[in-house]
Amino acid sequence: MTREELYSNIIRKKSFLCVGLDTDIKKIPQHLLGGENPVFSFNKAIIDATADTCIAYKPNLAFYEADGWKGMQTLERTVGYIRSNYPDMFIIADAKRGDIGNTSKMYARTFFEQMDFDAVTVAPYMGSDSVTPFIGYPDRWVVLLALTSNKGSADFQDTLSDNGEKLYQKVLRISRDEWGGNPDNMMYVVGATRADMLAGIRQIIPDNFLLVPGIGAQGGSLAEVCKYGMNGHCGLIVNSSRAILYADSSESFAEAARAEAIKVRDEMAGYLI
Amino acid sequence: MTREELYSNIIRKKSFLCVGLDTDIKKIPQHLLGGENPVFSFNKAIIDATADTCIAYKPNLAFYEADGWKGMQTLERTVGYIRSNYPDMFIIADAKRGDIGNTSKMYARTFFEQMDFDAVTVAPYMGSDSVTPFIGYPDRWVVLLALTSNKGSADFQDTLSDNGEKLYQKVLRISRDEWGGNPDNMMYVVGATRADMLAGIRQIIPDNFLLVPGIGAQGGSLAEVCKYGMNGHCGLIVNSSRAILYADSSESFAEAARAEAIKVRDEMAGYLI
Repeated sequence: MTREELYSNIIRKKSFLCVGLDTDIKKIPQHLLGGENPVFSFNKAIIDATADTCIAYKPNLAFYEADGWKGMQTLERTVGYIRSNYPDMFIIADAKRGDIGNTSKMYARTFFEQMDFDAVTVAPYMGSDSVTPFIGYPDRWVVLLALTSNKGSADFQDTLSDNGEKLYQKVLRISRDEWGGNPDNMMYVVGATRADMLAGIRQIIPDNFLLVPGIGAQGGSLAEVCKYGMNGHCGLIVNSSRAILYADSSESFAEAARAEAIKVRDEMAGYLI
Repeated sequence: MTREELYSNIIRKKSFLCVGLDTDIKKIPQHLLGGENPVFSFNKAIIDATADTCIAYKPNLAFYEADGWKGMQTLERTVGYIRSNYPDMFIIADAKRGDIGNTSKMYARTFFEQMDFDAVTVAPYMGSDSVTPFIGYPDRWVVLLALTSNKGSADFQDTLSDNGEKLYQKVLRISRDEWGGNPDNMMYVVGATRADMLAGIRQIIPDNFLLVPGIGAQGGSLAEVCKYGMNGHCGLIVNSSRAILYADSSESFAEAARAEAIKVRDEMAGYLI
């Protein structure tokens, strides 16, 4: 998907919501557990209930791998379901991959060729050749970790280097200047829990989309994120996972998820005007 | 596996070789391609040919995921084969995982419970709660990326912070002092291509095992690694992947792999005296 297509979906749907499919077999409603594939049934119901409220889905690989090869089969089936039924959806593999060049090349092949993801999250620690193999697939995206939403993010990402630059700022700068990352092929993860940093981040990468986790269960504020992070073409994909998926554990879980997604979408619509 | 067991295997086998199972369907001998599962057949032959020369195997997840759920099935089958036939083997998932706490917990469950790995490689960029969920499984190990063997490693790992510490040194220090990482549950990835840094690294973490990639195809020197990195209990697991796996592409590939592994083992035996 191109940046223009993504932006036009956002405008049409008045939403920049991404629903994170962190589907945990231990948390899905009891009544699904007897079925042939409870995780897929859950995902399908969530997707059908939320597809008109969001512009992206983000399966978190960890939750599928935890069920071994059967989990990967469920993941492939989920991606296939979205592609067939909601072809305008942007699908992100939340995988946090990154390895030496020849290995990152294999991961890129996995997510962009073997599976049909639009984007994959990548960790920057190993530098250039761990990230660049993901760049250059036409209309596919790298989503590079910059400033994450978790408690531990300060351990290294905030490290001040001797030139006065923090590590996450260096990640933004190097990927922009030296790796061929541009607003048409690279997004960045910036956590909603660190929204006060967004203004500074926008000085370094004004035009790139940001994938923003951390609203909902992690406590970040959508208003703050929009205030500091939005640009002329929205520039934000805001993710919510647990708050939507597990809004209710009864047989009406999908309706509850939809209600929660609509609430977020309606708030987003206000910021898009 | 405990540190003592690992060390006693090293002494008994006079080897600290880890064979990296980076099995690429595009590189395995032609004659295997007609079989039911060429990648598993290749792995099985390599394992049977090298098991007495090495103390560890390290499947690289990227190479299995690239074949989707079938690849994960092949991975599980490979791990099962090693466990059943060579129970003294240390098995490392080269996965470079790391995510927010609840997600890293899922990854730990995958590698230590769903599958039966002894260790998993983890990327430090997201800090404490991305790594600590992997610690605390009895006799299982975190292998934390510190200074990697690839070209891009200098981009961020060498970044000098305002207190005069490089990023990889900070990773070593913080994981040691603040995360409960100790020589019985944590190893570090240090690339053989950066062997000159090993003396300094040993000042920070004298007793931990290091997993050292980069000899063979990547060009690092075993002599240098041993000179600067070995400690009183060996302290090294040195990996070779491509140089062993693809030593020969004919029907005698396994014999060629064995000859290559024996060459490395014999050199190692000299350093262990």
